Amino acid sequence: MKDKVRVGIYGGSGYGGAELLRILLFHPNVEIVFVTANEQAGKAIGEVHRNLNGLIDLSFVKDAEDLSGIDCVFLALPHGQAMEIVPRLPAQMKAIDLSGDFRLRDQSVFEKHYKQPHTAMNAQADFVYGLTETNREAIRNARLISNPGCFATATLLGLAPLVANGLINGRVVVDAKTGSSGSGAKAAANTHHPQRMTSFYAYKPFTHQHVPEIEQELAHVGDWTNELVFMTHSLPVARGIFASIYAEAKSDLS
Amino acid sequence: MKDKVRVGIYGGSGYGGAELLRILLFHPNVEIVFVTANEQAGKAIGEVHRNLNGLIDLSFVKDAEDLSGIDCVFLALPHGQAMEIVPRLPAQMKAIDLSGDFRLRDQSVFEKHYKQPHTAMNAQADFVYGLTETNREAIRNARLISNPGCFATATLLGLAPLVANGLINGRVVVDAKTGSSGSGAKAAANTHHPQRMTSFYAYKPFTHQHVPEIEQELAHVGDWTNELVFMTHSLPVARGIFASIYAEAKSDLS
Amino acid sequence: MKDKVRVGIYGGSGYGGAELLRILLFHPNVEIVFVTANEQAGKAIGEVHRNLNGLIDLSFVKDAEDLSGIDCVFLALPHGQAMEIVPRLPAQMKAIDLSGDFRLRDQSVFEKHYKQPHTAMNAQADFVYGLTETNREAIRNARLISNPGCFATATLLGLAPLVANGLINGRVVVDAKTGSSGSGAKAAANTHHPQRMTSFYAYKPFTHQHVPEIEQELAHVGDWTNELVFMTHSLPVARGIFASIYAEAKSDLS
Amino acid sequence: MKDKVRVGIYGGSGYGGAELLRILLFHPNVEIVFVTANEQAGKAIGEVHRNLNGLIDLSFVKDAEDLSGIDCVFLALPHGQAMEIVPRLPAQMKAIDLSGDFRLRDQSVFEKHYKQPHTAMNAQADFVYGLTETNREAIRNARLISNPGCFATATLLGLAPLVANGLINGRVVVDAKTGSSGSGAKAAANTHHPQRMTSFYAYKPFTHQHVPEIEQELAHVGDWTNELVFMTHSLPVARGIFASIYAEAKSDLS
Repeated sequence: MKDKVRVGIYGGSGYGGAELLRILLFHPNVEIVFVTANEQAGKAIGEVHRNLNGLIDLSFVKDAEDLSGIDCVFLALPHGQAMEIVPRLPAQMKAIDLSGDFRLRDQSVFEKHYKQPHTAMNAQADFVYGLTETNREAIRNARLISNPGCFATATLLGLAPLVANGLINGRVVVDAKTGSSGSGAKAAANTHHPQRMTSFYAYKPFTHQHVPEIEQELAHVGDWTNELVFMTHSLPVARGIFASIYAEAKSDLS
Repeated sequence: MKDKVRVGIYGGSGYGGAELLRILLFHPNVEIVFVTANEQAGKAIGEVHRNLNGLIDLSFVKDAEDLSGIDCVFLALPHGQAMEIVPRLPAQMKAIDLSGDFRLRDQSVFEKHYKQPHTAMNAQADFVYGLTETNREAIRNARLISNPGCFATATLLGLAPLVANGLINGRVVVDAKTGSSGSGAKAAANTHHPQRMTSFYAYKPFTHQHVPEIEQELAHVGDWTNELVFMTHSLPVARGIFASIYAEAKSDLS
Repeated sequence: MKDKVRVGIYGGSGYGGAELLRILLFHPNVEIVFVTANEQAGKAIGEVHRNLNGLIDLSFVKDAEDLSGIDCVFLALPHGQAMEIVPRLPAQMKAIDLSGDFRLRDQSVFEKHYKQPHTAMNAQADFVYGLTETNREAIRNARLISNPGCFATATLLGLAPLVANGLINGRVVVDAKTGSSGSGAKAAANTHHPQRMTSFYAYKPFTHQHVPEIEQELAHVGDWTNELVFMTHSLPVARGIFASIYAEAKSDLS
Repeated sequence: MKDKVRVGIYGGSGYGGAELLRILLFHPNVEIVFVTANEQAGKAIGEVHRNLNGLIDLSFVKDAEDLSGIDCVFLALPHGQAMEIVPRLPAQMKAIDLSGDFRLRDQSVFEKHYKQPHTAMNAQADFVYGLTETNREAIRNARLISNPGCFATATLLGLAPLVANGLINGRVVVDAKTGSSGSGAKAAANTHHPQRMTSFYAYKPFTHQHVPEIEQELAHVGDWTNELVFMTHSLPVARGIFASIYAEAKSDLS
């Protein structure tokens, strides 16, 4: 009989951590051993994530004291923090990172888009890009997995099959729109309710940090030398991304 | 001293009529003489449009009984009704139509997109397309004015200056998003609050009836032989249209 | 080993029916045999309720042809229709009604609030009021169950324990607010998105049809001779009811 | 011919300041001379308040350097700051305060509800409570005016006429709901869009700082010895307060 997978979570107080906890709590083969958080350390998880109240008895801890017996860790930390933790993990421990730290294979591209030095490119080389639809077999056997960004996921789910099958030509325009939870759980000017609730606007024109991630993975699945025009907008809903993708088919498609 | 312009409104109970009434009521040189409505005939205007309560004493009437002394009529009726009224107007009366009836110069294009026969193409020939930014002088002297559609306005304000100055090449992609009031004042499935409030979706892909109107006017202001890819989406806000327009500049622009 | 309960649903195309289907589809001991609908008859259930797509293969039928082998029916019909069906059900069949038809024990009170004659008061006498928190044992053994109204549920969950334990005195004020899905799945003026999305307003002051239902059940659980002031409001959210209940404690409560 | 009133504004970068500016900019007899702001000092007003772009040329200043020639100042500062400024104003200068600093006549009540010492109670004695509907004549002649709080305004507009005319008896219940802009222009957890957009909840039960202000003014207009039960809720809209007020009439009212 199969034992449960023993899991630790670094950074469980944000929206990514909240969804991860919800999914793992309902998974029949997972046991959550610890969950770290910075500002919320010491508080019961069910108090911070009210939808999990009664489903979990743990409190957030400041740091994991002991990793022995842990099979897998998830990292749901702000960009730049996973690269501090991953190199220190035990050699056989599986890790799944939800941040942008290990998605990009080219250090200079990372540093240009994330505006900080990368201190763990050695570890990056061992990461598999965690988009199941394009990388299922590699993910199955990976020790280190880097989960795709939100806009990258939406765009790749649409474009990757077309590129993988060589169906399109020329410039591709992606007009992407995100809900407000994409900005995270911390209150900020761009998610202030009186102004967001009836607003729609474009931001970071053509320079979003998910662009190189999308192009890297399109080149991974097929022959990608096309131009990608990528525009991000803010929607007055809480969840979800909607990407309208405009591409020219090489020949008629049904 | 200038007398007031005496105005009649056909179809004042919808959202277009409501905004028109609000603007005219605050205009120092306009007197509103009559306002027609179908279902709301007999009701006080301030009762139907609560924001106008106390600003106007008139009630909606079923039809205009007497047009003598009227300088100008506005038509804010559902598509297909203005073409019944315009040919019967006195020869010198000015008319401004807010519907789609008189925007398109090609009868077959109209009939294809509006899915009904056009019965007043003779009158259409006298209409000026009422987009001030592209047609200011013609509008100033026109007897008959056909106001642009909502998506057409948003798109033309962005594209017309580029086309008029010959600045762009190739395919243009317009990703347009509309608020729910664009569907009118009548409750309908696509504006049912429980489903619209957190939704975003595409509709009428590439076939919106404003497409031929946009192309007609782009050809009017400049040399337009480009391809127009036009996509409409529904936003969960009440007002406004946001159009993201993607075009290739012939040369570098600041 | 226990067989599955075989269930039929009358009126599965509305919001009540949609939630009922979702719950029953994930219930390990239920088999759904038929689902009726009026306007949607003939359509696949997963096409009408997109969240159920892939979970159920049935299509809506106009009427149940054969009730043999059915253990229990649910009725999620507009008010006034369950009273036509219940008297014709086989004598041992269990039925759970979600409408207002069988909640009120006094025919004249029903007819005053629902503004229609009641044609099945004989059957009404056999119904148990289906609020588990106040009626658990009776529900367990009932053949016929009448589910509480939305406002009644919210109010009784707050007030019933206080009344059952004789803790309050004097007039009770209930200020209740409902989301827009409470008006049902049909588009209507009061759920038209452009007007509902930023609105909050009171309606049906002091006369909502759930008032007699609340008072009937308070008298059922305890000694209720107090005055109930009940006010309904519309909230610009899709789901849920929030009831603020003001009552005077007989003595200090913690 | 009357010269324009020359006005200075302390604290013009918040929502109160924005509305004040909008109203004064359209007033034919007002000239705005300076507008202070803390964090936004140095920025053009039209850049911070985009709806005022093009209507005003001033930039926010850190502090007013010279008050000579100023007829009247408005103070739209966070609570606790007006009491620092008002005592230093020239003796004849009119001042209108939008904060809670000068509304309450009893120092101990102020200090209990605002949780800070009051350092200018001498000046408080000269303030008139600025609710026009109850204090019109006193406001007309006042040098110092303290504008009512948001919840206090909504509640007093409903209750004051009943109390002034001695029409009600007994306990009054006020169930008040506010839009999110009531929390101000600074992003905060309670106005974070992903959580606020579909939420409704009660807060500060029975202890809101507007309660003593309401009771003080009810006692000012009439004979008020009744009990006030006052409950505040948060609505997922941006603007406005809706107060449902429950009171018992002494005799039948139409």
